[in-house]
Amino acid sequence: MHSYEKWYAQKGAQGDVVLSTRVRLARNLADMPFSAKLDPQGKENVAHEIREAAKNLPLAQKAIGAMRWIDMAELPQLAAVSMAEQRLVSAAFARQEPGTALLLRDDRRVSVMLCEEDHLRIQAYSPGLALDETWAMADEIDTALGGSLDYAFDERLGYLTQCPTNLGTAMRASVLLHLPALETLDRVGRLAESISKLGLTIRGAFGEGSGAEGSLFQLSNQVTLGISERQALDNLQAITSQIAEQERRARKELLQRPEWENKVWRAYGILRYARLLDSGDAIKLLSLARLGAAGGILPIEIETLNALMTDIQPATLCLAKQVTEADQRDRARAEMIRENLEE
Amino acid sequence: MHSYEKWYAQKGAQGDVVLSTRVRLARNLADMPFSAKLDPQGKENVAHEIREAAKNLPLAQKAIGAMRWIDMAELPQLAAVSMAEQRLVSAAFARQEPGTALLLRDDRRVSVMLCEEDHLRIQAYSPGLALDETWAMADEIDTALGGSLDYAFDERLGYLTQCPTNLGTAMRASVLLHLPALETLDRVGRLAESISKLGLTIRGAFGEGSGAEGSLFQLSNQVTLGISERQALDNLQAITSQIAEQERRARKELLQRPEWENKVWRAYGILRYARLLDSGDAIKLLSLARLGAAGGILPIEIETLNALMTDIQPATLCLAKQVTEADQRDRARAEMIRENLEE
Repeated sequence: MHSYEKWYAQKGAQGDVVLSTRVRLARNLADMPFSAKLDPQGKENVAHEIREAAKNLPLAQKAIGAMRWIDMAELPQLAAVSMAEQRLVSAAFARQEPGTALLLRDDRRVSVMLCEEDHLRIQAYSPGLALDETWAMADEIDTALGGSLDYAFDERLGYLTQCPTNLGTAMRASVLLHLPALETLDRVGRLAESISKLGLTIRGAFGEGSGAEGSLFQLSNQVTLGISERQALDNLQAITSQIAEQERRARKELLQRPEWENKVWRAYGILRYARLLDSGDAIKLLSLARLGAAGGILPIEIETLNALMTDIQPATLCLAKQVTEADQRDRARAEMIRENLEE
Repeated sequence: MHSYEKWYAQKGAQGDVVLSTRVRLARNLADMPFSAKLDPQGKENVAHEIREAAKNLPLAQKAIGAMRWIDMAELPQLAAVSMAEQRLVSAAFARQEPGTALLLRDDRRVSVMLCEEDHLRIQAYSPGLALDETWAMADEIDTALGGSLDYAFDERLGYLTQCPTNLGTAMRASVLLHLPALETLDRVGRLAESISKLGLTIRGAFGEGSGAEGSLFQLSNQVTLGISERQALDNLQAITSQIAEQERRARKELLQRPEWENKVWRAYGILRYARLLDSGDAIKLLSLARLGAAGGILPIEIETLNALMTDIQPATLCLAKQVTEADQRDRARAEMIRENLEE
C-alpha cells in the first residue's frame, strides 16, 4: 500500500491484546497566545518559528532531519482524513484549518501537529506494548526542539497547556487494546470504574463518546499534574499488563464455548469470500477474526488483522484502492480483505 | 456415505433448476378393504399376498428380483425417518405402523410402499427432469405385479383408490424445483395461480402446508381422472420447462445485483468454515450456494449441493455421521458440508 513498511503492521510485545502504544506531549511557545486565540496568520507565524528552530538545531540531523514538513491546507482532503484514521493526527487537525502544519517522520512513527489545541503536539507510536521506547522517541524530539524554543513552563505547574487537564507533564500515554472477550462478558464497565481510581481512563478507541467499535479500547493516563512521566508510564504499564492478562483468561473461557468457536470461523468465512463489506460490518468481523487468530483457531497473523483494521477505514481505503464513489468502497474493502486473507 | 451411489447426487437434465423427478402409482387389491379399514393382521395379509405375487412372477427376475423386502416395523426408527428425508417413503409411512412393508430397489430409484394410504404405492425416481424414464421404471413394476395381482379397477373410473382425488390413472408425477430467484422476486404466487388452471399444483417441497424451505418446490399433476398418463406427463414436462426458463431469466436478473453476488459468496464462506449449522440455517445457505453455483459464480458442482440438501437432514445425517445427540448434530452437519465443499 505504501512505500514505507507500515509500523502498525509490525509485531509488538503483548500483541495478542495490545495493538499499539502512543505517547503524546503538549507544548506551547512562551511568547505566543494559545492556538484558540490565534488567527490563521498567527498560526502560520508559530509554525514558522518552530520550523526555523527545527532547521537550526544541531541535533536536528538525527532526530528531526528525517521529518517531512506538511502544510495541512495543501494536503488533499482524503490524505488528511486518512492520517486521522491512522492516528497520526487528531480528527480536529484533519479538518485542515488554515495555518496548521505537520512534521512527520518518514516511517510515520513520530509526528508533530503544529497549532492544534496546543502549539506543538509531539506524538510517537509503536506496535504492541512499548511505553519506554515510545516515550524515548517523543522525548528525543521534545528535547531537540526545546533546545532552541522557549516553551511555556511554570516552576510550580509544569508545562502550560491550553486545556488545564493537560497541565504538568502535559504527557498523555495510551495503549490501544483489543478486548473482545471482556466486552462480551460485560466486564469492561467494572474495569473502567476501578481504573479511574488509579488515575487512568479507558474508552472506545474511535474517540471520546464513541462506542468500542471492533472491541477496540484506548487506555491512557488521566493525571498529568503532581506525577512524573516515569510514574505515569510505570502505572500504565502495570495496569495494561493486568488487563491483558484478564482478557486472555476471558478469551480462553469464551473460545471454549462451541458457539464462539463457530462465530469466529463464520466471520473468517465471510471475510474470505464477501464481495461487499461496509466498514462497520468489516470491523466487527475483523475483531472476531482477531479473537480467533489470537486464540490459535484461525490461520491468520494477528498483524495482518491489525493492519486491515486501519487500512479498511474509508479514506485510507480510497487512497489505497483508487476508488472515489461510496458504492465502490464496500467492494474495494471486501477485495482488500480477501487479498490479505488468502490461504 | 452409502455403499450404493446416491441417485440424487447424479447429473440430470435441466439440473440447474430441476433436482429430481418422481412418478408414483397408487394400486389396491380388488378383494381387500382399503388400508384404513385394515387392522395390522389385515395389512400383513395384504403385504404377504403382494410378496408372494412378486416371488412367483416370471418377469420378477428382471424388475423385482433386485428389490429388497423391508418390514417397516423392524427398521430402526432413524433409518425409517431417513428414508422419508430421502423421499423413498412418505412421512406417514416412516411412522412404521404395524403390518406395513417396503420393497426397495438396491439403487433406491424404485420403492413400493405396502399398506400406506393405498395397498401399493409404486414410486420411481430420477435425477433432473426425466419423466419418461421415471414413468417407465414405475410402469415396469406395475405391469409385473399387475400380471399376478387382481387390482381394484373400474372400467369407467379407472384405478380405485382410497382417496377419490387419486381415482383414474392414480398416477402422481412430480418434479422437485429449485426456484430461489422466482421466490425472491415474489413471482411464485402468480405462477401457482396460472398453474392450477392447467391441472397442476406447486407447493413447498417439504410437504403440504410447509413453507418452501431452501426455495425448493414440488410441481405435480393434480388431475388423474379423464386424462391419460401420457397427457399428464406431457403437460408436466411442458410446464416444467417453462418454469425452468423463467427461473433462469430471474436468476440472471438477480445475480447481476451486487448485493446478491455478495449474498451468494457470503453463504459459501459460512458453509466452508462454520463449525455449527442447524438444519434451517444450512438449507438456506445451501440454497444460496446452489443459486451461485448454477449462475457460474461459485466453484461448486450443483450435484454436490443436491446431495447435501438431502444428506444434512437430521436422521440421514445422524446415520451417516454416527451421532445421536441433538447438540452433536449441528457440528456433524457443519463438518459434512465442509468436507464436501473443500476446494
